[in-house]
Amino acid sequence: MERITATYYIETPFSSESAATVLAGEQSSGTFVAVPGETEELKYRFAARVESIDHLETVSESAIPGSTSPSGTYHRARVTVSWSVENFGYNLPVLISTLQGNLYEIRQFTGLKLLDIQLPDSYADQYAGPAFGIPGCRQLTGVQGRPLIGTIIKPSIGLTPEQTAELVKTLAEAGIDFVKDDELMGSSANSPFGKRVDAVMDVINRHADRTGKKVMYAFNISGEIDEMLQRYEKVVNAGGTCAMVSLNSVGISATKKICDQRALAIHGHRNGWGMMTRHPLLGIEFPAYQKLWRLAGVDQIHVNGIQNKFWESDDSVVQSIEACLTPMFSGYSVLPVVSSGQWGGQAPETYRRTKTIDLLYMAGGGILAHPMGPSAGVIALQQAWQAAVNGLNVAEAAGKYPEFAKSVEKFGGK
Amino acid sequence: MERITATYYIETPFSSESAATVLAGEQSSGTFVAVPGETEELKYRFAARVESIDHLETVSESAIPGSTSPSGTYHRARVTVSWSVENFGYNLPVLISTLQGNLYEIRQFTGLKLLDIQLPDSYADQYAGPAFGIPGCRQLTGVQGRPLIGTIIKPSIGLTPEQTAELVKTLAEAGIDFVKDDELMGSSANSPFGKRVDAVMDVINRHADRTGKKVMYAFNISGEIDEMLQRYEKVVNAGGTCAMVSLNSVGISATKKICDQRALAIHGHRNGWGMMTRHPLLGIEFPAYQKLWRLAGVDQIHVNGIQNKFWESDDSVVQSIEACLTPMFSGYSVLPVVSSGQWGGQAPETYRRTKTIDLLYMAGGGILAHPMGPSAGVIALQQAWQAAVNGLNVAEAAGKYPEFAKSVEKFGGK
Repeated sequence: MERITATYYIETPFSSESAATVLAGEQSSGTFVAVPGETEELKYRFAARVESIDHLETVSESAIPGSTSPSGTYHRARVTVSWSVENFGYNLPVLISTLQGNLYEIRQFTGLKLLDIQLPDSYADQYAGPAFGIPGCRQLTGVQGRPLIGTIIKPSIGLTPEQTAELVKTLAEAGIDFVKDDELMGSSANSPFGKRVDAVMDVINRHADRTGKKVMYAFNISGEIDEMLQRYEKVVNAGGTCAMVSLNSVGISATKKICDQRALAIHGHRNGWGMMTRHPLLGIEFPAYQKLWRLAGVDQIHVNGIQNKFWESDDSVVQSIEACLTPMFSGYSVLPVVSSGQWGGQAPETYRRTKTIDLLYMAGGGILAHPMGPSAGVIALQQAWQAAVNGLNVAEAAGKYPEFAKSVEKFGGK
Repeated sequence: MERITATYYIETPFSSESAATVLAGEQSSGTFVAVPGETEELKYRFAARVESIDHLETVSESAIPGSTSPSGTYHRARVTVSWSVENFGYNLPVLISTLQGNLYEIRQFTGLKLLDIQLPDSYADQYAGPAFGIPGCRQLTGVQGRPLIGTIIKPSIGLTPEQTAELVKTLAEAGIDFVKDDELMGSSANSPFGKRVDAVMDVINRHADRTGKKVMYAFNISGEIDEMLQRYEKVVNAGGTCAMVSLNSVGISATKKICDQRALAIHGHRNGWGMMTRHPLLGIEFPAYQKLWRLAGVDQIHVNGIQNKFWESDDSVVQSIEACLTPMFSGYSVLPVVSSGQWGGQAPETYRRTKTIDLLYMAGGGILAHPMGPSAGVIALQQAWQAAVNGLNVAEAAGKYPEFAKSVEKFGGK
């Protein structure tokens, strides 16, 4: 029978072996005392199995509180556990409850992080995956041979539909590929969702009629399920190509329902992710997380960016981009969304470390606050990526491209 | 204009004032440089405001990594921030993205926990809240004057529908009020959902016909939205009174859709919660969390239990029970579900600290592994609660009640 495996980074005041056994028991057939009906046959079929334990460092202080070691030492290990697919069938929430459920609360752990998961091929038969992915998003935007260049409407919240559309007009004329609502902007008092769609798509459709280039706009449809479906339909009817969902805030069941419509590319925003990953020994790592959302059918997912304004290290960002670009089954392509304090200056380092142009490269203030205006901001980003692929560093790129040089003057000292 | 307020426990390498200002900016109209269109009028209307800052301790080591203090000190504070309802309208996911979004990733924080939220009264007009709550769950089960006594089907996974129904029969005959699927059990290879509902409800309906007492069984419908709605309907048609949803795994949008059906009491399982709260300076505290789920309409929510088998302290459990029992608007009643390693022995202390009988008191192994059998296990729990309300301690209760005395022998040494 096919099995699902999960790898965890754990810390325990007990032996790693005993802690791993508790994990497997709690997340399959266990409770705190043996009960009638728990036969050996049943255990063999449905019990989780500890597949391997790699012992790592021993420390003298626990990573998170809730349990004390009598010996004053805490053992860390990398543990792999497996479950039969018979336990779940094909049900993402039950899978999540098994992989990430009560085990964070178990006293045998003073640290637990889900690092990665491996799903059997039969999952590819059950889940259609992203409807567009990288090739589909390139096709919808007509961008080949370089990253998609995008921006976020700022201020995050407060602009009217007309002001938003005016900004989109400027950006479209400057050659932008992608624009998105901020995750804080759903339907505000002075920017009702439907009016925003009408105003923005009017600009985008006119621009497309004139130039043949349709800007992809990710409207934030995050909300209750019926409202999301209505707003999705509104975007489709207005000729839009993309909708944004705040994955953690909406949840996987409703997000999958949206992805299942398969008429719009789904921009997966991971806000709230910091809570789930920032502590090194609590939560989930991105390689595991992005697989769950690819199963649900998300086409684009946020990965932060090199030298971002947040806490995340470049190594972690690079790992996330690589995770997205690693094939899952045969396809399930997802476009990594690079953002957070980005401007052209990070392009050379991003390319040097990832060797990919399959990115949606987002700059917020980096475009809208360009000294020569938003149009020059877009041009500077395209220049930065051209330079990056050609192996130029920031100084060399600034010497060659005047718009990018202005970006360096304004943002380079940060 | 009405405002929503949120209180955070923060730690920062900078001054608490500047960190709070960054929080408010990032979660409303801010980005990393000033942009055109960000007028003073717009800021005033949509900007988040720092309402208060209570300075707390200064420490020399950061709670979570990702930012280093040049001075080597980290300041902690309790900060209250507010937003106009105009920013969100009434949209739970956008509210969550605002309260708990990118801010966990901000470099200005080396710790951030959402402690509580206050919602204006207009939310009560928009959200119907729990369809049953405490009075509704009492009415459905016919239990007055004591806690509802419940148990979980164990082994968590592996029993057939017939074995499950046989166990439910034993428990029903013993006088149990409530039984639930484990969160790991959705629809497994040897216990398809529909067959389990048929087998279990046949037992429950026959018992109800004979005795007038209908056991509440929480079938785990967690899954994709359409499947959840089908399974919900199946439970309704079979005469069931309750469905269980793994809140964090399903997400709030789909959970609200389920709650909106208002035909079954919704048992809200919080598995995965440990990741969100176990670190003292990362995530969210239960008083804030349970308000969001009451808005969504959950009727019952897990709070762990006194002397539980998990990491959580009794103080934290008591705080959670009190949060559930604090009225929200005028109603929105939610039944706290006490579980995790519970048997009758914790009843006196639970009552001493909370002075309430408005609980669903769950014992897993505590009932099914009772030395005199499950029937005696149920009786022992009822005895324990009678004793608790009468002010008896464990020893006194054991002296008076033989079934409870046997529980003490078996579980009391743990």
